[in-house]
Amino acid sequence: MTDSYHMTPEEFRRNGYAMVDWVADYLENVADYPVTSRVSPGEVRAALPADAPEQPEPFASVLEDLNRVIMPGITHWQSPNWFAFFPANSSGPAILGELAAAGLGVQGMLWSTSPAATELETLVVDWMAELLDLPQQWRTTDQGGGVIQMSASDATHVALVTAREIARREAPIDRLVVYGSDQTHSSLEKGARIAGYSNFRTVASDDEYAMRPDALEAAVAADRAAGLVPAFVAATIGTTATTAVDPVRAIASIANANAMWCHVDAAYAGSAMICPEFRHHQDGIELVDSYMFNPHKWMFTNFDCDLYYVADRKPLLDAMSILPPYLRNAATLSGEVIDYRDWHVPLGRRFRALKLWFVLRHYGATGIRHHIREHVRLAHGLADRIAADDRLELVAPVPFALVVFRHRAGNEATTRLATALNESGKVAVSATTLGDMAAIRVTVGQTTTAAFHVDALWALIDELA
Amino acid sequence: MTDSYHMTPEEFRRNGYAMVDWVADYLENVADYPVTSRVSPGEVRAALPADAPEQPEPFASVLEDLNRVIMPGITHWQSPNWFAFFPANSSGPAILGELAAAGLGVQGMLWSTSPAATELETLVVDWMAELLDLPQQWRTTDQGGGVIQMSASDATHVALVTAREIARREAPIDRLVVYGSDQTHSSLEKGARIAGYSNFRTVASDDEYAMRPDALEAAVAADRAAGLVPAFVAATIGTTATTAVDPVRAIASIANANAMWCHVDAAYAGSAMICPEFRHHQDGIELVDSYMFNPHKWMFTNFDCDLYYVADRKPLLDAMSILPPYLRNAATLSGEVIDYRDWHVPLGRRFRALKLWFVLRHYGATGIRHHIREHVRLAHGLADRIAADDRLELVAPVPFALVVFRHRAGNEATTRLATALNESGKVAVSATTLGDMAAIRVTVGQTTTAAFHVDALWALIDELA
Repeated sequence: MTDSYHMTPEEFRRNGYAMVDWVADYLENVADYPVTSRVSPGEVRAALPADAPEQPEPFASVLEDLNRVIMPGITHWQSPNWFAFFPANSSGPAILGELAAAGLGVQGMLWSTSPAATELETLVVDWMAELLDLPQQWRTTDQGGGVIQMSASDATHVALVTAREIARREAPIDRLVVYGSDQTHSSLEKGARIAGYSNFRTVASDDEYAMRPDALEAAVAADRAAGLVPAFVAATIGTTATTAVDPVRAIASIANANAMWCHVDAAYAGSAMICPEFRHHQDGIELVDSYMFNPHKWMFTNFDCDLYYVADRKPLLDAMSILPPYLRNAATLSGEVIDYRDWHVPLGRRFRALKLWFVLRHYGATGIRHHIREHVRLAHGLADRIAADDRLELVAPVPFALVVFRHRAGNEATTRLATALNESGKVAVSATTLGDMAAIRVTVGQTTTAAFHVDALWALIDELA
Repeated sequence: MTDSYHMTPEEFRRNGYAMVDWVADYLENVADYPVTSRVSPGEVRAALPADAPEQPEPFASVLEDLNRVIMPGITHWQSPNWFAFFPANSSGPAILGELAAAGLGVQGMLWSTSPAATELETLVVDWMAELLDLPQQWRTTDQGGGVIQMSASDATHVALVTAREIARREAPIDRLVVYGSDQTHSSLEKGARIAGYSNFRTVASDDEYAMRPDALEAAVAADRAAGLVPAFVAATIGTTATTAVDPVRAIASIANANAMWCHVDAAYAGSAMICPEFRHHQDGIELVDSYMFNPHKWMFTNFDCDLYYVADRKPLLDAMSILPPYLRNAATLSGEVIDYRDWHVPLGRRFRALKLWFVLRHYGATGIRHHIREHVRLAHGLADRIAADDRLELVAPVPFALVVFRHRAGNEATTRLATALNESGKVAVSATTLGDMAAIRVTVGQTTTAAFHVDALWALIDELA
């Protein structure tokens, strides 16, 4: 009988080199794979044993199955030919930050359970607030603060719960109302339902897909007149369908006048605010209650890394904190430290600040600005080509690096073009609808997407249109 | 001006080797660090620049700061001398699984966004159901299914929301009631508050800290009589304070008789069920609605890896799913595939199944059973020594690998002993209270904890007692 089945540190070193080589090779060759997986439902699972392994296997045979079975089922989000959804880009330093975090394996639920995890997190969220020119009050050293959450959906859900706890002092949950536009991400409605709200209003947007403040004001007034209590509104900087920018100042003013919580979803476009020329899009954010953006979308930091900021941390802590005896400790009781488990639903937490710190130091703000601007420049180049083409037309402005267009021949031609692009295996784009109109979304944002890849995409669009 | 600030694949390979060496060295030397960090609040942050880096820095200088600034602020959860809280153990294969997942950087929100991510996840959760002898109905191939969530708190929250949506058909949220015992983890009360419940009942436990079914039955009857609607009860297999086991069959029967949702928290002890000799503790689980356990606690799989199972997936999907146009796709519409974003709050998801798959194949069920049994054996050896010592006494049975004891001289002596153990830097234990009684918790569960480490812990207890 074996004494230990563990991988020894020396075996880890050897297998670790092999795994690093595997990742390095993947990063080198990722552009060569068909971007979208071609497998049918059930195919991956069927290629693996139905029953759990009873005996240990060498690491080499796991790597072998990774290549043989898993890889054909992978859709390559890290391909430079990935133009679908929003990017979930990654980078070398972020991957190494994940490796360091996994190696340390610490829990940062309380300051005291690994002080560096909390302190590095407060530092990097404050650094990001500085780089994005977010209000001074939002710094963890001031009245508000930031925290890393898993996803934008989680952050929005937490904002909804915090607002609900405040509004509930006025009225039962069933009378509270949540507002978004017809372009707001589905995580708002999902989060609202999960938080127990039963009234959700979809506010109309204008022809550039931005929320109409007059429509919001009218909806709020109508609900008040009906005896309901408007509780929460989300403004989006960079909507999912077209990266439209809601007028934050106007929306936040309405929210403030009606004692509603105003939340800003800048999940995608927040990253652009590292460049001063985009900051006019966040005009008015000093008036809002909460804000989130995802370095894991367009800032070269592996998922999961959503940054959630609040202007005032007290209502958040009131909604989320609970202190059982087994979590009591001198540091917490002193009030001198931040215990991040009070900033979200989960208790346990990975050391996610490491990867963001690695990214910020590897690129510097200069490097991040360079690549964001390059993606925006490439997107505008593509938009110009589309605008100049008789067969195609842009259907929305391009404030950042998402280009949304259609085939002038109509919905069927548009959908057929999207399908043909994706079925080529050479690129991935998203098909969507805007009202009744079919449209194609092309995001330029994968870490290594360069002029060459956007030129090739255009050649393909040109050929297939 | 530089063209690119990215780390090239070749640089990644070189830096990756360095990072692997760093982790391998850490795993080799982790026992040599003081287990608990000695830093004061603010010390780590103060040692780093207040402002975000403007210029790129070489990876070597990041590693240097990792050693110089971060490491002194780390509390070493992966030390074999870690006996505090519950373990959050890791292992070589799990760390490499994290590295592979970070390298691939795929999103598994929908089957179609990377089929292998979903299919490997359904496979490993079904494998685990087989290994733990969970009901056939809970397999993803049957009526229920399993999903990887971030933490036990997230899983419990999702169960509470699902139950709330069912119970809400009978009565408004403010009339629904949630039940746990006085030993139930705080995540139940926190999750209930977040899910919007306002009635939470603490049911008494017996002298072995297990929930009293008669007390639950009385509380449910009293609430019914008062016009409230009992909606949710959590039974725990392995409570936080003492790993007590609630009588699942009795509790689930009361729940079923009252149309309540019954959830089982086996976050810690679930891992033990891979050994048949512990399964009598889960008698009755075929009667419950949902169940979770954390391979990231005691099954050598890095956090985050919580497995959440439901007996019937329909109410879960009803509560969590929403389908906007940009997420529509042929596979989803066919109904042939699982889209895991409908199984929890977040939309985006990391490829966490990889690390669990790496662990299961590296150890095999045989290897995991061996180490779980070894930890239990070592814990019982320690318990025997404590029981035989005149100065100390056990305060609870030891069904798994947590030993809870006190100093016979009373609370002050117990607390002093816990503090002395932790201040030695040689071990970490948890101080807690059971009612008014101070107690010390020692969990034997860190991956590499062996007889030698438990002997050394005992020598230290013996010396300091």
